[in-house]
Amino acid sequence: MRATIMYGAGDVRVENVPDAKLIEDTDAVVRVLRSCVCGSDLWPYGSMPASTEGRRMGHEFLGVVESVGADVSGLKSGDVVVAPFVWADNTCDFCSEGLHTSCRHGGQWGASDVDGGQGEAVRVPQAQGTLVKLPVGEDSELLPSLLTLSDVFCTGHHGVVTSRVGPGKSVTVVGDGAVGLSAVLAAKRLGAERIVLMGRHKVRTDLGREFGATDVVAERGEEGIEKVRELTRGDGTHAVVECVGTEQSLGMALGVVRDGGVVSRLGVSQYTHVPMGFDSMMKNLTVTGGAAPARAYIEELLPDILDGKIEPGKVFDRTVSIEEVPEGYRAMADREALKVLIRP
Amino acid sequence: MRATIMYGAGDVRVENVPDAKLIEDTDAVVRVLRSCVCGSDLWPYGSMPASTEGRRMGHEFLGVVESVGADVSGLKSGDVVVAPFVWADNTCDFCSEGLHTSCRHGGQWGASDVDGGQGEAVRVPQAQGTLVKLPVGEDSELLPSLLTLSDVFCTGHHGVVTSRVGPGKSVTVVGDGAVGLSAVLAAKRLGAERIVLMGRHKVRTDLGREFGATDVVAERGEEGIEKVRELTRGDGTHAVVECVGTEQSLGMALGVVRDGGVVSRLGVSQYTHVPMGFDSMMKNLTVTGGAAPARAYIEELLPDILDGKIEPGKVFDRTVSIEEVPEGYRAMADREALKVLIRP
Repeated sequence: MRATIMYGAGDVRVENVPDAKLIEDTDAVVRVLRSCVCGSDLWPYGSMPASTEGRRMGHEFLGVVESVGADVSGLKSGDVVVAPFVWADNTCDFCSEGLHTSCRHGGQWGASDVDGGQGEAVRVPQAQGTLVKLPVGEDSELLPSLLTLSDVFCTGHHGVVTSRVGPGKSVTVVGDGAVGLSAVLAAKRLGAERIVLMGRHKVRTDLGREFGATDVVAERGEEGIEKVRELTRGDGTHAVVECVGTEQSLGMALGVVRDGGVVSRLGVSQYTHVPMGFDSMMKNLTVTGGAAPARAYIEELLPDILDGKIEPGKVFDRTVSIEEVPEGYRAMADREALKVLIRP
Repeated sequence: MRATIMYGAGDVRVENVPDAKLIEDTDAVVRVLRSCVCGSDLWPYGSMPASTEGRRMGHEFLGVVESVGADVSGLKSGDVVVAPFVWADNTCDFCSEGLHTSCRHGGQWGASDVDGGQGEAVRVPQAQGTLVKLPVGEDSELLPSLLTLSDVFCTGHHGVVTSRVGPGKSVTVVGDGAVGLSAVLAAKRLGAERIVLMGRHKVRTDLGREFGATDVVAERGEEGIEKVRELTRGDGTHAVVECVGTEQSLGMALGVVRDGGVVSRLGVSQYTHVPMGFDSMMKNLTVTGGAAPARAYIEELLPDILDGKIEPGKVFDRTVSIEEVPEGYRAMADREALKVLIRP
């Protein structure tokens, strides 16, 4: 089968690999209907050291079950399913607490004999715990939005939940990438009163407004902080969702949060330390967030997509075939595309 | 009247100052029955640059109302009251949210024409919002425990609340000072299943066990982290309350927290940055806490002290007169005393 392998910075290839197959009795094999490129894939795309073995890519996919192991119940060949961006048993103590990213028997896509999502098929370990059945056909127009349950929309939702956004609350979303826009949509869905989007790419911030942003701040650094404070009586917002991951964006996040407020981190941290000294203690600031336990959120978010209440799939602005995946990476890295959908 | 003034590191004097008096109509004057020295007073005691003006000291006190301004209702001369360690109007939006430390009309004891608590009397701004009436007499044996509502027990409680300690939860308390021991007691009160106290001063950790610690870990650094992990199947505890404030103790706190867990900071930070990079994101760690809004907690905690259910005043192991306050500072700094009570 065909699958995506990264061999180093800027070096993504689509190659023949062994067909996905059942290994454990708890496995399923899923034929991929839709996958995509993640903003987090762009970090290794920018900096991965050259490697002869390469790394199988992709951690977001939905598809059709082709076969299931003897110990898998509730799933059968032909089911349309979505996979969260880590696999998990959905029964251990961490999973029971909704923290599937720390599952005692879970793991990452693309590692050792587990396939990546950017390919024609995937061996899914812990299939019964990992996969969620979708009540749609293979040709549903909802597939792009349903695919966002794999990662990007659940990630935005995680930032919003962990920063305690709700009715009457104000939130700043730092970053107008697909995660940032998803956080805007999630904040709107949970009733945020004011949603400030910090971003400077008009096409993206326009989608942000469509998703529910009440204000857009294009300025960065101290100027951006000043602007958000102006919008909020000098106080800052109750919640901040940081969707970039750089030291600069983290600094902005901490600069615009209200006393007693929460900064939730979604952007993969390119920093090692968070500036939180005496001042942040006097203000009772909280820093939280991290890798979203998407599996914990899928059942809650699914109905709103099926009902057409939300359309998180609008973050996809380009579609490529499996052979065009390298071009998809390039387009996202060059900011020509916001988020690239893959139809293998 | 007599009051405590710090002129520099190690230089605490008791001197004559102008009598406390009403200035605003929202003021009260309180004659101090009990005050104390705070662990946080030891930071300037160790490092304050010499000053000719000095700084009025003390932010924990209870006493008797001597006079009230025209706009103060609900309080009258003769009432026994406790003051939280910042004054606040108790009506602004921050106070309504329980964040009195960020009150829009509040402030610190000892600043400009507001007296410090380590003296014979105090002018109390925003008296109606700040002071809480205590249903006890001037000679009550409960005064030491009631005084802890001013800061130290409320601070321990704040750490426990913000780190989401509750029934079935495990918590590590880093530091066996008065705040750490208060956090142990607060965790026990809120039903924590397992309370690990990290400290190496036997007299203190013995009181910690009496307060509810189920385990004591004397080791520090990596060794201490290892020990706590051994006690918890390698996982660490759900919550950690950091009660020291140094880089080392913060590192231990982050080292013993379970995935998805919370580190609450109570120790006045001597560091400027918190090590929270990629690893802490994958683990979904939260760092929170800060200056405790004691005023928000007093009504909740008061009944348990009045009923004798808890005795947080056991953290006081030495009592001094107002003239002996400098000796009290020395004894605490030299770790001869855990926490010093002042009877002016």
